[in-house]
Order: sequence, then structure tokens, then C-alpha cells
Amino acid sequence: MYDEELTTLMIPGPVPIHPRVYRAMSRVIYGHRTKEYQTTYKETVGLLQRLLQTEQDVLLFAGSGTAAMEAAIANAIEPGEKVLNVINGKFSERWQEITTAFGAKSELQEVTYGQAASPEAVREALASDASIRAVTICHNETSTGVLNPAKEIGQIVRDYDRLLIVDGITSVGGDYVYPDKWNFDILVTGSQKCLGVPPGLGVIWVGSRAWKKIDTRKQPNPTYYLDLVKAKKRYDSFGDSPFTSAVTLMYGLHESLTLMFEEGYEQRIERHRRLGRITRAGYLGMGLDLLADPAFYSNTVTAVRYPGGITDKEFRNQVRNLGILIAGGQGPVKGKIWRTNHMNICTERDVLATIAIIEVVLKRLGYDVPIGSGVLAAQEQMLKESY
Amino acid sequence: MYDEELTTLMIPGPVPIHPRVYRAMSRVIYGHRTKEYQTTYKETVGLLQRLLQTEQDVLLFAGSGTAAMEAAIANAIEPGEKVLNVINGKFSERWQEITTAFGAKSELQEVTYGQAASPEAVREALASDASIRAVTICHNETSTGVLNPAKEIGQIVRDYDRLLIVDGITSVGGDYVYPDKWNFDILVTGSQKCLGVPPGLGVIWVGSRAWKKIDTRKQPNPTYYLDLVKAKKRYDSFGDSPFTSAVTLMYGLHESLTLMFEEGYEQRIERHRRLGRITRAGYLGMGLDLLADPAFYSNTVTAVRYPGGITDKEFRNQVRNLGILIAGGQGPVKGKIWRTNHMNICTERDVLATIAIIEVVLKRLGYDVPIGSGVLAAQEQMLKESY
Repeated sequence: MYDEELTTLMIPGPVPIHPRVYRAMSRVIYGHRTKEYQTTYKETVGLLQRLLQTEQDVLLFAGSGTAAMEAAIANAIEPGEKVLNVINGKFSERWQEITTAFGAKSELQEVTYGQAASPEAVREALASDASIRAVTICHNETSTGVLNPAKEIGQIVRDYDRLLIVDGITSVGGDYVYPDKWNFDILVTGSQKCLGVPPGLGVIWVGSRAWKKIDTRKQPNPTYYLDLVKAKKRYDSFGDSPFTSAVTLMYGLHESLTLMFEEGYEQRIERHRRLGRITRAGYLGMGLDLLADPAFYSNTVTAVRYPGGITDKEFRNQVRNLGILIAGGQGPVKGKIWRTNHMNICTERDVLATIAIIEVVLKRLGYDVPIGSGVLAAQEQMLKESY
Repeated sequence: MYDEELTTLMIPGPVPIHPRVYRAMSRVIYGHRTKEYQTTYKETVGLLQRLLQTEQDVLLFAGSGTAAMEAAIANAIEPGEKVLNVINGKFSERWQEITTAFGAKSELQEVTYGQAASPEAVREALASDASIRAVTICHNETSTGVLNPAKEIGQIVRDYDRLLIVDGITSVGGDYVYPDKWNFDILVTGSQKCLGVPPGLGVIWVGSRAWKKIDTRKQPNPTYYLDLVKAKKRYDSFGDSPFTSAVTLMYGLHESLTLMFEEGYEQRIERHRRLGRITRAGYLGMGLDLLADPAFYSNTVTAVRYPGGITDKEFRNQVRNLGILIAGGQGPVKGKIWRTNHMNICTERDVLATIAIIEVVLKRLGYDVPIGSGVLAAQEQMLKESY
């Protein structure tokens, strides 16, 4: 009985949505230029600021996380400027694509998929090349399950007085992200991951140093829709966005952020971290290798290397037919890994079911490890957790 | 993070509802005396007849399954008449309570909780007491996880020319139930179990022999709301019900029955049976005893005996806090068993998660069996299944 609507989304986004968010989104729509909607909009921005522990600007676009990434580069970087793109996965690579798309020079710092970005290597690059104006990183590399040391990199980039532009698409709302304290200059995220809302909203936090850079640019801003100055001006004056807001998604985001603080921010992050530990224990318990360097495991997504003889497509199809949707690999690890999320409303129940189903499918496909060992290890990890 | 709306309902009803049923129920309401609604109503009755493989009358009440049980006794039995109430659980016992509430004489045939009703014992009772006018049984005893041999009892009751009144509340839609072929005279069910709709609809199938008994009763019908003659007359003339229909629930039932035939009737029953086998393998694998006689295992609900030292309340609370709601025991087995369902949209994923979570909680509470053994046994059963 394969049924899309009965499938547990264990892909790293979109993730399962809380029924209260669906209900918030099913309320009757309203005018996006009304005082009432502006109140909702401002409350939502306030909740995002609370989440990020910031008083600086948070702007929203009807668009995906990639739109927010584009807004970051298009506004803060000018054609011809040099940007250090630290790449250790498919999503950090996107920064490079956007950098060059807008006529800037990309200085690549490539790290093997599964390894973390190196603060030391960033320091060396900045020390040896004064023309680098900004650094891009992906905080949580969704393609590899690596959590990059964003805080450490932030300190270095600040020391060298460059801009740090961070993709927090799969970390914001699921792990700690403090753009002020960690010396970010721009941080972007999307609605459909740990923020627990369907896709369609891009979020961008802009710090004072980024504004200074944006406000003093020599060449005209190459964007119209994603113009941050216009967005800030509109928000500061009216509490909404320059172009039509995705009203329904905003109702959803407002509710999802409300839910987060009802659960408790610390509790929520700890749940994500615990689910990460249980997930990894499960996979390691069935004798599998994880892609990520153990020192930099993501708390929101785990990537697992296929054992020999298992075909990606057949494997994921069978898992899907048993009611769980999981993701494959991208770029150089396509066909070599699969990925499962532990985001938003995910609980131990979902993780245990996923591990158990995956074990059954691996066994069916001939993987020669005692069945049950993965669930057992996950259960033992649960027993170790202090909750 | 305990959250009612994120909890998997593994109690034996209400059970999880398909999102399409929720959506069907969220459509704008309409007048219950319109041609349009009567079309929906008649289609719904048609789908129920298809499910029961019958052309005889299926009537609906806004009310629970118990209302349908009351309709059966109140209409078909007269005060002073004798009814053989075969009791092997809390729900078959309800027939006795209703029998006496309407002034009929109850002849009890009590069977230990966990055992099945005995066709031979029914034969003996009917052979030795010609004054017994009807027999009541519960097809699937939700309180014990026993599937009673309704077909065999049906043959005997027909041989002795008495009426057989059957509670099919947790079997209809989840296991085979053929009221015509199996010689039932009245069959009742409710919306919130294997029919996959929220509580609030009572369904009653009435065969020709029961109508004959109803139509020739000497004393006035003691009910007003649950009058079957009135219900049939109204349905035959207008295709709706004599009193206000639960319009929203009917939209839900129409959609849920549509879903059943989309999945396939045989496929649906086989899924329930398979989930029953996997559930039982899991519990037995962790060294637990099931309440039911193995020859009469229910395919929609399983009852498990608590091992020594585990307290019902504490156990079920901890399981609930891990996102799974399960049921305790009732009557003489209260505090001695717990019960989990495998009904409606339940899948292997839900069963495996339930077994895994239950193992963790039993271990936390000091149950001394190697953790993981239950999930392992459930996984091994999955591997044996031919799907």
C-alpha cells in the first residue's frame, strides 16, 4: 500500500509538518497590505529574531532558500570582487555558482565530501590574499551530513575584516545558530527544513557590516526582486515586504515558530542532537559507515555509505514502498550514499522505524549483517540518553 | 516533546485517519435533505454493501457502535424473550447489558478472557433450550484480541433457526465479514475502527430473517431514535435517515470506503493479517505472552500480558511520552494486559516503531529480556512475508 500522504518524510526537506501549521495555513487568506497582516508579519520576524538571538534585520522573500542565497551575493558582492567559496558538498558549491553568476571571482577552497571546512585553511587563504572580500560557507552540509565549524570560521573572517556569508538552511531551527555572537555577516535559511513549514519562503539575516558593504556599493544592485535595501526600507516603514508576500506560508511560519518556543528552544535543539546520536548509533550498529567526519556530525541529517552490492535506486524504492521516503546522494557521492533527516517534528519513533525498515530492506537485498543489530544499537543509545 | 497531535494512535480505536478522509470532512457542509446529499448517502450505503458483499439493508445512525448494538436488541428482541449472550470479553458482555436493559432474559455462556467462543457450546445451549430466540457474539473481541469463529457459530444458529446478532465493530473493514454467507441476522459496526473515520457513526446490517422478526413483534418498539423500521422506510423512500444525519462524518465514511477499494479489498485484509503476524512475532520475540488463544488471534488488535514487575500506568505513560498511544486492559484483565491495534492505515513502520519503543520502555522499567529481540523477531517475520 504505497501512498504518498501516508509516507514518513525522512528526506532532508521538505520534512513532516505539524498539523497546527497545516491548520494555520488553511485559514482564510487576507490582504497582504493590511494592518492585520503586517502585525502577523512583524510578529513572525520577531520570532525569527528570537530564534537567532538577534536584534538585527531579518527579511523574508517568497522564494526558496536559494533565492535568499542569491539575495546575499547579489546585494553584498560586486562584479569583479573576489569571494572565497569553501566547498565541502553540493550546497556550499551553490555559493560558488551564484558567486560566478553575478560576475564575482570565485576562489575555491575544496574539501572532500564528508570532511568539514577547515578554519585554519580559511585563515591561510585570507592571510595570503588581501583581495578576498568575503567568505561563503554552508553551516550544515545537507549533502554530506557535516556540521561545519561556523563559529570558528566566523572569528577568523572577522579577524581579517572580511564578510562571512552563511547558508543555514538545514541548521536554523534544528541546531544552535547565533549570527551575531558567531560573527556572521549574512545568514540565509529556507522554510522547509528545521523551520517546519512547506517550501516557499527564503529568510535572510543581514548584519551591520553587511549593510555597510551593501550601502556603499559602487555598481548598481543587479537584482530587482531580491533587493535587500528595498526590502529593509519597506519592512522598516510598513512591517511587510516590497512585493506580494506568500501570505499562507507566513501564517504557517508564524505557527511553526510559536510551536518551537512552546516546546522550548533548548529542548528542541537537544531533541535534534539526541535524534542524531540515536540515528548514528543505529547505522553504525548495523556495520555501516557514515560519510561525515565523526568530529563534525550534523544533528539534523545523516549520510550513510552504501555497503557493497546494494543499488541506490532499488534500495530507496523498497524503503519507500514500506512507507518511508529517504534521499540519495548528490554530486560525487551520487549512488554512493543515502541520507535521512532528523528535523522538526521527528521523534525517536520515526528514527527507530526508519532504522528497522532499512535493515529489512538491506537484508532482502543481500546485505550480510545480522538483522536487528541496528535497531538494537539505536535502542541502547536511547537507554543511555538522560531523558 | 509530548504532543497529542503527533502521537501515533495504536489504541484499538479511534485509529489514525487518512488525510483524504480529513479533507473530505473539511468540505463545506450541505443540507441533509437535499438530492445531492442523498446521492452521497446512497453511494456510501452502496460502498458498505460492497464491503459486506450483501444486497440486504445497511442502515446508519449518528451514534456510536453501541447505539447500533442497542438498535439491534431493541428492535429484534422483545421483553421476556431469552437471548444467549456468549461472553468472552468486555464487548461481548455489552450485549448482555443491553439485553437485560430492554427487559429480555439473558442466558450467559461465559468463556475465559483470551479464549474464543465455542461453536459446540452454542450448539449444546440451543439444543437444550428451545426458548432461546437469539444469540449474541462479538466477532472480534477488542478487549482480548480474539477473533471468534463467527462463521461456524452462524451455521449452528441457522441450523437451530434462531437469530444471530453480531458485533463486528473491530472486524468490518479489517478482516473478512460476510453476513449473508455466514448466516448472520444482524451485524453492527462503528465508524472509528477499521472503517477509518472518526467516532460518531453506527452502522447496522439487517438480514431478511431479522426483518421478519422485527416486523412481527407483538410489543411496541421501545425505541424512537433507533427504530429500524422507520430507518429502512426513510432510506428506501428518500435515500437518507429519519433524523438528522452526521453529514461531515458521512463525507468521511464515503471517502474512507473509496480509499479501501482503491487499495483493494483483498489487499487490505491481507495487510491487516500480515501486520497481525508481525505484531505477534514482535511481542513473542521479546518473551511476552499474548492473551489470546493462538488458534483465534485477532488480525486487528493484539493483547499482551504484562510481565511481572511492570506497572500498567507507568508503562503506558512512558510509551505515550515517546509518541505512541496504546491501550490497557478492561474488566478482569485490567492492569494485566496492554493492547495495540493494527487497523486502517497502519503499516509495518508503525508496528516496528511500537515494538521498538515498547522494548525500550520495558527495559527502562527493569524487564529482564535482551533488548532488540522483539524488533528482530518482527523484522524476521517481515522477511518471511511474501510481499
